[in-house]
Amino acid sequence: MISANTPKTLDALFARRAFEFDHPNPILADLPKETNETISLAYGDADPRLFPIKELIATVGGLLNENTDAVLNYAPSDRALTELVANRLQRRGVNVDPQNILITYGSSQILGLLPQIMLNQGDVVIVEGPTFLGGIEYFVTQGAIIETVPVREDGMDIDALEETLKRLAAHGTQAKFIYTIPTHHNPTGTMMPLANRKRLLALAASYGVLVLEDDAYGDLDFKGEMAASLLTLPGSEWVLHIGTFSKILAPGVRMAWAYGPTSVMQRLRKVKSDQGTGPFITRLVSFIAQHGWLDNHIGVLNAAYAHKYGIMRDAMAAHFPNDVRVSTPGGGFFVYGYLPKDMPARELIDVAIAHGVSFLPGTVGYANGGGTHEMRLAFSFQSEEKIADGIQRLGAAMRMFRERK
Amino acid sequence: MISANTPKTLDALFARRAFEFDHPNPILADLPKETNETISLAYGDADPRLFPIKELIATVGGLLNENTDAVLNYAPSDRALTELVANRLQRRGVNVDPQNILITYGSSQILGLLPQIMLNQGDVVIVEGPTFLGGIEYFVTQGAIIETVPVREDGMDIDALEETLKRLAAHGTQAKFIYTIPTHHNPTGTMMPLANRKRLLALAASYGVLVLEDDAYGDLDFKGEMAASLLTLPGSEWVLHIGTFSKILAPGVRMAWAYGPTSVMQRLRKVKSDQGTGPFITRLVSFIAQHGWLDNHIGVLNAAYAHKYGIMRDAMAAHFPNDVRVSTPGGGFFVYGYLPKDMPARELIDVAIAHGVSFLPGTVGYANGGGTHEMRLAFSFQSEEKIADGIQRLGAAMRMFRERK
Repeated sequence: MISANTPKTLDALFARRAFEFDHPNPILADLPKETNETISLAYGDADPRLFPIKELIATVGGLLNENTDAVLNYAPSDRALTELVANRLQRRGVNVDPQNILITYGSSQILGLLPQIMLNQGDVVIVEGPTFLGGIEYFVTQGAIIETVPVREDGMDIDALEETLKRLAAHGTQAKFIYTIPTHHNPTGTMMPLANRKRLLALAASYGVLVLEDDAYGDLDFKGEMAASLLTLPGSEWVLHIGTFSKILAPGVRMAWAYGPTSVMQRLRKVKSDQGTGPFITRLVSFIAQHGWLDNHIGVLNAAYAHKYGIMRDAMAAHFPNDVRVSTPGGGFFVYGYLPKDMPARELIDVAIAHGVSFLPGTVGYANGGGTHEMRLAFSFQSEEKIADGIQRLGAAMRMFRERK
Repeated sequence: MISANTPKTLDALFARRAFEFDHPNPILADLPKETNETISLAYGDADPRLFPIKELIATVGGLLNENTDAVLNYAPSDRALTELVANRLQRRGVNVDPQNILITYGSSQILGLLPQIMLNQGDVVIVEGPTFLGGIEYFVTQGAIIETVPVREDGMDIDALEETLKRLAAHGTQAKFIYTIPTHHNPTGTMMPLANRKRLLALAASYGVLVLEDDAYGDLDFKGEMAASLLTLPGSEWVLHIGTFSKILAPGVRMAWAYGPTSVMQRLRKVKSDQGTGPFITRLVSFIAQHGWLDNHIGVLNAAYAHKYGIMRDAMAAHFPNDVRVSTPGGGFFVYGYLPKDMPARELIDVAIAHGVSFLPGTVGYANGGGTHEMRLAFSFQSEEKIADGIQRLGAAMRMFRERK
């Protein structure tokens, strides 16, 4: 029996599940600090020169003056934004039920919430190796055991995926979801071919695993072509698709969407627990995107990022040693580099920082210790001049690294 | 053993906890529809004429032109907003550890997340009767059993709270948290006296229950006085405090804060799962609030809302039957009405809507069926003219209701 006289502690009050979320974040590689002089090619920030500042300011002015109560008072998420997402998915051939679209505070919100509704302690999640670090963090923090499937020149190795699923099944283990970035993959810049997308979904349906399709770079294709979303292929009932305005408008507005099966979306709404994404920010995004503006803006972005990638590609050809292999992305934000055996990324980066340039060592994209001789180079953030200068510095760092050995 | 050949269903993939969140929302009272002609006194929307439109537009312009990368690229929540909240709490006498401040997408986000970390199925939550409907919804949806403590003219009845805690303890039940709105209570407009605040915390510490202090109206005092936050009283280690910019800036920006014990805040951060509240919206709020602007604005709001309450009070005195008793708030957004026995709120509201005015029946603030002869009247949203007109219509509806009997 409980009495008012025995000493009480707050710790006695938590739900059992609160302790399930107590796994520490996976330890990040201990990277050397960039300085103000470092040309950082490490992070996939958007190019701030491409932010539509004038349009955002004009939109806010119009919104607040004309739609004051709808954007500043209590109001639901803007329905026009859901319709915009529905239209964009429909154009790609998805048979959309708008009720299953969820507007979120960034696609990270979904990467964080999905494990809450899918994972019991020790459940298996399959990820690509390498993959987006943020995903691994959320999955591991919530108790996932990570199985890694390698990424080849054409994206996830589907043979290896099948072997993994078969091996798990033989042990009675059903993976909960497969996290994939099939289009302009982060960090490798690779593209999964249509045949592999179809095989991936057939395997998902056959083994009963949800596929989390992260389509962050789906619109960012240098030629303006759109790959087939997994939502348009047979087995799409196993797909939870996430997309974001971070790359095509601005990361700082934290606006993204998810689309998937009713049973998943209903539960994501429950754990989202914020009364829906707010009226001001959702209407800001839907208003600026009106009347074809977003399509036009995406065209501008693709031309600009294609140009910046070209600068990086030419600089790498001119300055990198011949035995450093690099990926040839057709879109997205990243080039991925494969370093020779005598050039481990974690050692190279110290020399690179001393030369005033940085990159992201491959290890941070792996949950299994891989990536020791890999590196990610972002052409998204820096200016053309800085990209060329940074790659030249990095080439010099690579030569210096070898000479010192 | 799992094989690729047996048919699979998505339902097999969910976490056990996903089903714990499957409780249906409590059923809302089936209210008659307001029309365009209805003067709605039902909802606690802010007065749109008091939104700082010009300042918001100017702030957005300045922010986007001068701080482009910090607000539109990937960036953490604005540290200045955390400092602003810390300073405001410190001014009220709270010994603040800024690490335990969490900036959230509206205080509803906390009302939604707290049950996720505190409640196992069938755990008890103590609420005031009446209270804020949104709170009850979140708690019940996540499996809470609700115990209701009545609200008197001076807020929560602390004797009744003690009896409830004693009764629960005698049955071996430890309540998880007590949800209270001690200052300018929603919906009753009452104020909990200092002595009762102290007793509340002493009981919480003695019985080992967290106190969730919803301070939504803490700044909105007609005389500009601030009541003692529970955070400043002995036993504050049992307090999770939430405050919001919804009432003092604009609900639509969805910006609020929580402050409480480290163990609670750390777990709230984990289930928040959105990489922190975004840079654009947090910086927008911290920039507009700079240099004393927010204090000045709160002064303007308090004068305006005091005036609007005065209009409502005078109109009620002129037009309501003598046996309709109303509360006398010193701040906040609401007057609460106690109707005579022959005038149940759910029947009265049909007549009121026919007279072109609405209110919120008291029942929606109770989890236990109470409030049948109570009503909430918001003076926050409507103009002075509409308030006077609405109350006159409501008085006429009350007389008509009686005549028809």
